[in-house]
Formats: sequence, C-alpha cells, structure tokens
Amino acid sequence: MKVVILGAGNVASHLTRALLESTVHVAQIYNRTLEKAEAIAKPYNLAYTDKISEIQKADLYIISTSDEAIEEVSYHIPFDDTLVVHTAGSLGIDSLKGDYRKGVLYPLQTFSTDKAVRYEKVPFFIETENEEDFKKLEKLMLKVSEKVQKITSEQRATLHLSAVFVCNFVNYLYTIGEKVIEEAGLPFETLVPLIDETCQKIHEITPKQAQTGPAKREDQVIIEKHLAMLKNKNDWFQIYQLMTQGIVKQQNEL
Amino acid sequence: MKVVILGAGNVASHLTRALLESTVHVAQIYNRTLEKAEAIAKPYNLAYTDKISEIQKADLYIISTSDEAIEEVSYHIPFDDTLVVHTAGSLGIDSLKGDYRKGVLYPLQTFSTDKAVRYEKVPFFIETENEEDFKKLEKLMLKVSEKVQKITSEQRATLHLSAVFVCNFVNYLYTIGEKVIEEAGLPFETLVPLIDETCQKIHEITPKQAQTGPAKREDQVIIEKHLAMLKNKNDWFQIYQLMTQGIVKQQNEL
Repeated sequence: MKVVILGAGNVASHLTRALLESTVHVAQIYNRTLEKAEAIAKPYNLAYTDKISEIQKADLYIISTSDEAIEEVSYHIPFDDTLVVHTAGSLGIDSLKGDYRKGVLYPLQTFSTDKAVRYEKVPFFIETENEEDFKKLEKLMLKVSEKVQKITSEQRATLHLSAVFVCNFVNYLYTIGEKVIEEAGLPFETLVPLIDETCQKIHEITPKQAQTGPAKREDQVIIEKHLAMLKNKNDWFQIYQLMTQGIVKQQNEL
Repeated sequence: MKVVILGAGNVASHLTRALLESTVHVAQIYNRTLEKAEAIAKPYNLAYTDKISEIQKADLYIISTSDEAIEEVSYHIPFDDTLVVHTAGSLGIDSLKGDYRKGVLYPLQTFSTDKAVRYEKVPFFIETENEEDFKKLEKLMLKVSEKVQKITSEQRATLHLSAVFVCNFVNYLYTIGEKVIEEAGLPFETLVPLIDETCQKIHEITPKQAQTGPAKREDQVIIEKHLAMLKNKNDWFQIYQLMTQGIVKQQNEL
C-alpha cells in the first residue's frame, strides 16, 4: 500500500513517522509551504512537493492539514480510483470533496513537535464509506497500533469533545499550576509527582473515586482562603469557583 | 523515634503505611471513631484508641485529621516535652494549640483509600519552629521519601493552591470526560492513553509548549460546534468557554 501524506503539522509529522517505523510505504509529503514538507520528508529521503498537481498516484491519501484546509486540499486530489481520508476529530466524511472513496482516520492523541510518542498505544478510529476500505485501513493501522476501531462520525465528534476536556483543558490547568507555584518561588517540577499520581490513579479506580481536595470535602474555610488568594486573578478565580461548584455537585449526586 | 498518628483518613492511613514500610516506630493510632483507628492499626498490630487521654508518650505526634478537627485534637495532647505536627496544606503552624514544640509536615500527594502510592516519590514539605526539629523531621522523612524540603507557611499555602489546579481540578475534568465519552457508547478506558500522554509530555516540555487543541489553534468552527454540543449542559458549557478563553489568551501572551 502506497501512501501520500498531505499536511506538515504535528499530526502529519507524527503519522509519517509512525507509518515509516511500521515499514509502511510512505511515498511523498505534500504541503503548501515547501520548507515544512521538506522538514518532514528529508530525514527519511521521501519525495515532497508544494504543488498538489504533482502528487503521486497512491493507494491512500491522508489529509492532516488544518481543519480549514481539508476541503480545499481534498478537492484538488487529481485521482478518482483511490482512497482519501482526513484525520480531524470533528469533521464529517463529507468534508472530503472528490469522486474518490472516502474515509476518516482519527488518532486519539496529543502530538507536539518535540515529544516522541509510543504509537502502538495510540488508539486509531476509522470511518469509511464501505467495509472493504475499513478492512484495508484497519490492516494498515494495526501495523502501527494495538488499538484500531470502527467509529461513526457522531461518536468521533463526542470522542473529540471528551478529549478536549481530559487533554487540552487538563494541560491548561498545568499551565495555571506552573504560574501559581512559581509565585511561591518553587519550580514546576515540584508538582510533577502529584500530576503523575493524579493520572496513575485513574488506571486503578474511577475518576469519581479518585477525587480528593477541599471541594470534595466541602471544606469552605480552605475554599474561601483559596478564592481570596485568587482575588486579583479574575480568570483563575472563575475557574476555581466553577470547578469547585462542579465537584461539590458531583459529590452530592446519587 | 516513637510516633503516634492522630486521625484515620486517607492521609493518616497512607502516612502510617509509609512510615512502617520505612521501619519507623509507629506506636499508636488515635481516632475519635474507634473502628477507623482499628482499621489502620490492626493489620500492623499497632495500639489504637478513641480516647485522647490514653495516647502514649511519644517523640512525635502527627495530626492528620480533617482540617476542622486539628485545633481541637492538638489542644488535648497531654504532653509538653514533645513535637507535634499537622499535615494540612493551608493551615498555619499556629493551628496547633499546646505548649509542645510545633511543626507542619505536608505531603504533596493525592491519597485515595484503594490506591497504593510510591512513597519515595512523594515530596514532603516541612515547617518547624526551630532548626533542631527540622533536622529531626528531615532525617525521619528521608527514610520514606527522596524529596524532603523546608518551606514557609506562605509557600505551603501557594503550593496547596497550585495542587488543587493540577490535581483536584484535573481529576474533575476526567470525570467530565468520562461522562461525555460514555454518551458516545465508548468506555472511559478509551481516553486513558491520551490522559497518560498529556501527563507524560510535561516531563519533557513545558505545559505551554505541550498545549494542543482547537482553543490553541483558535479554531472557531470546532469551538462553536463543541459549545453547541454542550448547550444543555450548563456547567460543562461554562467550563468549556472559560478554559478556551484562557488558552486563547495565553497563546497571545508574549
């Protein structure tokens, strides 16, 4: 199976690496900015181009551009007898504009440039127009990951939303924690064992069982003390209040 | 050094185990509910009591009750020539009411009943009235953990606040993620590799570098889509909006 990757962001570069490490034949990288395509392609001696008319004939095109660019890029793929997928969490299969066969290949993971990822642990969610293409993609992705699964567009959108809460928003809380602790003259590293354990716990017990802290105990004295410390930090004050209310409410649910 | 533990909650039970595993001499558990003291003491054949007048003479008393009970319990310790510490994040040393020497021993960790903890990775923060007691406590706790550090009351309060953000609130986001993903008919376990990687990333790059997602990309189409999905979930809608605003603002900071 010959694969062409379109896009050169974090998902595209990690996906390229994941496929190559699994000895999948990635033939070419396309990106509208040539330097970015080159940056991904060069280390592996892959072909690369910034002209979509010059993309090679392949069995599978994976579009990992920004969400806004997917439609435009998909429209210009100059082949019909092929399979084209995008990797976006919240776009339907109908974002792909062409007469080829269509699908979605959604990796549930957070990819940053300078952080290696164990791809075999990344769940891949597949949606296709027909069963044959699902089987093909499933077979391909099982070379990369232990977890490959069929999913509907609606499930994928919900999955993406849940991922925003447990990944993007969690990371944002880390950035707040970092700024708060630095005010005490302590480095962010001080918090890392606590962050690790918070994550480790939900491997063994449910998130609700794992909940601790002043909000869970409805410890109003500490909550008021914390809110007073945040009185000049409007955003953090609001987040503290909202999350505390949510935890209290959750404790009181049946 | 002979130690008596007062309290029988999560912190008390984990601290007792941590000290015993490090061959520290824990002599007795006190708790106002006898059954709870027994539950901790029995497996190790320790003495236990629900009468504070019956606590043994010891070199160190560790009060790990609820924050509200610390003052009351500390008041009734019937010895002066000894060291008494509490383990609360946000209470001053002056919450201890007695003529003994005073201190605070704050473990920066989230303790749940059914989850084992690697105590050698738990940072312990110590505050005492005099250097001699600091040295004693430091020596003792270095048997348990690799990380033992002096800290002021003010630093400890700030540390506790940052811990609420990166632990308690993070865990609350896990509970939201669980409920959202279950609406798609998928188990919470689906999110665990993503949760792991989100936590792993900040071992190698800063939280700001690790940020990904629609808010970071200022992807209004996806953000509006997500908010529409949350329109009947008032609390989650507000959290989504607030966190998204925060991430956007942070991206635009110098």
